[in-house]
Amino acid sequence: MRVHHDQLEVRTNGKGLYEITDEVQSKIDRSGVRNGTVTLFVQHTSCSIVIMENADPTARRDLEEFFNRLVSEDTDYFTHGSEGSDDMPSHIRMVLTRTSETVPIADGKMQLGTWQGIFLFEHRRAPHRRKLALTIIGE
Amino acid sequence: MRVHHDQLEVRTNGKGLYEITDEVQSKIDRSGVRNGTVTLFVQHTSCSIVIMENADPTARRDLEEFFNRLVSEDTDYFTHGSEGSDDMPSHIRMVLTRTSETVPIADGKMQLGTWQGIFLFEHRRAPHRRKLALTIIGE
Amino acid sequence: MRVHHDQLEVRTNGKGLYEITDEVQSKIDRSGVRNGTVTLFVQHTSCSIVIMENADPTARRDLEEFFNRLVSEDTDYFTHGSEGSDDMPSHIRMVLTRTSETVPIADGKMQLGTWQGIFLFEHRRAPHRRKLALTIIGE
Repeated sequence: MRVHHDQLEVRTNGKGLYEITDEVQSKIDRSGVRNGTVTLFVQHTSCSIVIMENADPTARRDLEEFFNRLVSEDTDYFTHGSEGSDDMPSHIRMVLTRTSETVPIADGKMQLGTWQGIFLFEHRRAPHRRKLALTIIGE
Repeated sequence: MRVHHDQLEVRTNGKGLYEITDEVQSKIDRSGVRNGTVTLFVQHTSCSIVIMENADPTARRDLEEFFNRLVSEDTDYFTHGSEGSDDMPSHIRMVLTRTSETVPIADGKMQLGTWQGIFLFEHRRAPHRRKLALTIIGE
Repeated sequence: MRVHHDQLEVRTNGKGLYEITDEVQSKIDRSGVRNGTVTLFVQHTSCSIVIMENADPTARRDLEEFFNRLVSEDTDYFTHGSEGSDDMPSHIRMVLTRTSETVPIADGKMQLGTWQGIFLFEHRRAPHRRKLALTIIGE
């Protein structure tokens, strides 16, 4: 049993879902761990990690539109907004989704279901470089 | 320290919460692990894992009703819906809840609070067989 | 590799976010674990764990106000409410956020981003003593 730390940088270009499944699997391949778990941890408070349907892009567009309406940039009672109208909504969207996700690894592969993909969910309009810490624990 | 993988199948019969606390504890018993963690990972994008009040069934009914209203099947802007009106809402309900949950194990028992139960949260109307991957890490 | 269990008690005094980042780091320091993960698990169904912006208190106030409106205490269809009007909303707010969170530890320190703090998110009006189980796995 051992601990293997790694990092992933994701360049985003506006709100939406960015798939990182293959990049995470590559990091696991390189770690040599065959059985255990990988914990993905996003080191920001204005983007999230989600596992989502990876086959049909319309599902991701509908999801994005749902969040745009649930946490509107036009909310009149928000006081925190020094970075713009997408600032406070980005923190709320992050709290409603996930900062960390733990995925099982068996025989060297993440045990995702057929339609599951891992996505960075960006909540800001401007381009960003997002950092994810990966911790692989296993043997 | 070691890694123990297992699986749980849950048969669902429509939207709602299905308690699996005892089934998960049985798997831990059989693993022989006394101290560590169990990670539950649901291998689907239209159901979730949640930890919820397990005493009063009215709490679960109110929760279900809240989600039916928050993510309505009548939403007019959804474009992804080849599998029916509960298709897109099921993905959003999943993103708003959890795909994985990690619970501590001490002296062979999950360290749940008095009122906590583990539930599969089904978001589809039709009956399904749901697969959960369990990864027990410990000694 | 080893497992280290610990506990944290947090006294809350009404709805809102209570930062516990330093208390968690102190527990890690005392465990002697230098590389691995810490899993925080809240043993209640009416409060949550979240990682949130820790610099500007207005962000936390806006977040609290958003949840007060999203899950209103005046909801007429709630039937579960033996403990008061904040009872059922507290369970829903918990399901919409997180019961467990796993954070990487490297060189003895949690790998949080610059603006990330760990918070207990209290959903009840009355004062409570909240219990968190900490499981540190590593070497």
